[in-house]
Amino acid sequence: MPRPYRAESWFHMCDVRSSFRKGTNMPAVAGYNSSVVLEAVRKREGLSRSDIAKHTGLTAQTVSNIVRKLLDDGLIEETGTQAGRSGKPRTLLQLRADSRFALGVHLDPIVTTIVLVNIAGEVVARSHPAITGDAGAAIRDIADSCERLIASSGVDRSAVIGLGLAMPGPLDVRTDTVLNPPNLNGWHEVPVVERLSEALDMPVILEKDVTAACYGESWVGGGAADRDFLFFYLGFGLSFGVSRHGDVYRGHTGNEGEIGHIVVDVDGRECWCGQRGCVSISCDPTAIVLKAVQRGVYDGAEEIDLTDMFAINGRFNDVCSKARQGDKTCDAILHETGRGIGRAAVILSDLFDIDHIVLGGPNWKQLEHAYLEEIEPMLRTKTVMRHVHDFKVTSTAVGDDVAALGAAVSVLDRKLSPKAAPLRFVRE
Amino acid sequence: MPRPYRAESWFHMCDVRSSFRKGTNMPAVAGYNSSVVLEAVRKREGLSRSDIAKHTGLTAQTVSNIVRKLLDDGLIEETGTQAGRSGKPRTLLQLRADSRFALGVHLDPIVTTIVLVNIAGEVVARSHPAITGDAGAAIRDIADSCERLIASSGVDRSAVIGLGLAMPGPLDVRTDTVLNPPNLNGWHEVPVVERLSEALDMPVILEKDVTAACYGESWVGGGAADRDFLFFYLGFGLSFGVSRHGDVYRGHTGNEGEIGHIVVDVDGRECWCGQRGCVSISCDPTAIVLKAVQRGVYDGAEEIDLTDMFAINGRFNDVCSKARQGDKTCDAILHETGRGIGRAAVILSDLFDIDHIVLGGPNWKQLEHAYLEEIEPMLRTKTVMRHVHDFKVTSTAVGDDVAALGAAVSVLDRKLSPKAAPLRFVRE
Repeated sequence: MPRPYRAESWFHMCDVRSSFRKGTNMPAVAGYNSSVVLEAVRKREGLSRSDIAKHTGLTAQTVSNIVRKLLDDGLIEETGTQAGRSGKPRTLLQLRADSRFALGVHLDPIVTTIVLVNIAGEVVARSHPAITGDAGAAIRDIADSCERLIASSGVDRSAVIGLGLAMPGPLDVRTDTVLNPPNLNGWHEVPVVERLSEALDMPVILEKDVTAACYGESWVGGGAADRDFLFFYLGFGLSFGVSRHGDVYRGHTGNEGEIGHIVVDVDGRECWCGQRGCVSISCDPTAIVLKAVQRGVYDGAEEIDLTDMFAINGRFNDVCSKARQGDKTCDAILHETGRGIGRAAVILSDLFDIDHIVLGGPNWKQLEHAYLEEIEPMLRTKTVMRHVHDFKVTSTAVGDDVAALGAAVSVLDRKLSPKAAPLRFVRE
Repeated sequence: MPRPYRAESWFHMCDVRSSFRKGTNMPAVAGYNSSVVLEAVRKREGLSRSDIAKHTGLTAQTVSNIVRKLLDDGLIEETGTQAGRSGKPRTLLQLRADSRFALGVHLDPIVTTIVLVNIAGEVVARSHPAITGDAGAAIRDIADSCERLIASSGVDRSAVIGLGLAMPGPLDVRTDTVLNPPNLNGWHEVPVVERLSEALDMPVILEKDVTAACYGESWVGGGAADRDFLFFYLGFGLSFGVSRHGDVYRGHTGNEGEIGHIVVDVDGRECWCGQRGCVSISCDPTAIVLKAVQRGVYDGAEEIDLTDMFAINGRFNDVCSKARQGDKTCDAILHETGRGIGRAAVILSDLFDIDHIVLGGPNWKQLEHAYLEEIEPMLRTKTVMRHVHDFKVTSTAVGDDVAALGAAVSVLDRKLSPKAAPLRFVRE
């Protein structure tokens, strides 16, 4: 059993970004070195203290002190010994995956996902509660659903160190507020972090949905973690995130990844911004349904209310399933919007000089077949970088949970991954 | 006088990125902490050892040991004492600006700039040699020009620790090779780092021009250094860079910042990529000259050879100077291309969630007046983020030297700024 511990104090000891945001540079080094060691143990099984010293550059004495503290805190454990090169036995260490947990909530206009994740990044419990109503009702429902999930999972509630909430933007992480997401009714300048952490009595972190998804893919996505990649998030809205060496950027206010007004079809529909064929109005689920209507897929059927997200979503699912069943019109529509996403991928891949594109989000599974056929060929023929390096386009290794899991991981990441920012000297 | 030192060993001791690239994580911590202290002294005058310990979180003993080493190496000096709060005198430290130097070369299709920069980031000597001919001749000319600049500056050659070379892309930093820059004749897969470091017998670092400019602005640009900003580079080509918390990203192969195929004019000229109105073919100097020809600015004049960069550049200068003198057609052209750059700024500012745009590069001074009038209003009316935060648009605080200085700074940066990457544990 994990030893009892004080979640709050541990949360703040290791949360170097939190102390950074509070304007103090202390006590960065101790927490930093500790998270360097913990990350090493997390990322590879069967490391000894001397392996850790060798790989991190920390002194043997420092590693030894930190390991003792992590053992005392129950975060890692000794798993036996192995003969070292000198013949002297080495004690091997591993993460105690179930010593701590975090909650991840992905509040999406269509479906809400809640996951309970251990510090190895494994989902130990999951639910899909119906969260409707305005912000006040939604926050109460989320808190209740989280309590139910913890209770039914059998996990000790005191081992749950925090909650990550992934939501559509725009939001403002400077004030921990959700501003005015166009696809969520009844959310207007809501101090969601304060309200949800009061309701649950635990620390809460707010992330834009795609940022959370990017964290999720970066932490547990097979092989993507230590390489740079762009993540395309395909849900009711479209956005992207970027992970470099395992770091995910949030931007000045937490809204990094607004992709909507990249033009992908110069002959496309007019946009409020003054351009035509912006990727949002060309490729989002509403655009796909509109194309289907215009091309007679629903000839004679009842009219579609373009302000009703659930109606749009139903038709979107219908177009995707018709395409899978061989409907040529629907299949052509998906390949067309796939080329639009491919065009955006060309622009972003060149901008960032990143060769790996990962796609995911609530709608990805339905679009995957058509989109994978379109995106890679576009990267190989339309990028400026096509003569410099090759490209890799893959589906999320995490799957449907990616944003919810990423929200939980964003909580874990602040504890388990080294963040060097506080060590830097910032002009005052 | 600076004490004699071995530039190479110091170069490698502190160059954590270099050791990282060689695949070893050692000896990161010692070099990291040393650069944390050096950065603190560089960024603020009048710090004592205890101030440094307070601001960095390093222990008093560690700071004391590092300060002794930096004093021994002649990189910092003691400047007197001040009474501390307890009444005990504190010894103040400052950077020895002229203890080390770096060369920065900006090889531009139109004009080459070489600067000699001290470790405070100050330009102590500058030249604009004519560098023409193919790669072989150009590398010899650059080396000769650098030797002449050092000799005429009076700086001890052994205090020059390396050279940064800024060039147009595409290049490949994985192999330190310039690939095939469209605007440089006679450069094709040139291992320029190897050749130039042989010619000068000193370490050479290769950077894309805009990446170097971004380093330059980040290190010495008034106030921009510790904030996130996007840098727009306006030269014979157009590109952008991004600096976050003083870190500048290079991308997978060193080519981050390829902006060319963002559509800014859906009714514009056709591009090879299959779109219309890409920002390069709409707003670069060739586009500006073409617009002037089409609108009769040169009615009756001789034809312009669009493959002759110097002819284009001459006409570009002419259009800018006509606009300044009140020519309405030329002025309208610059405002039009300024709106094109503004549209690109809208896209990038939303993508990165960054509120500060800095503009610079060889052509900026001539475009500044018209462009500053166009870009900020576009950000304030066309971005998705306009309801979340305000925007700041500024001219480079460094000026014409920004890319050359940035190339030199990129050498200094690897020695003087903490880079945490090697402390991270990377899966094998």
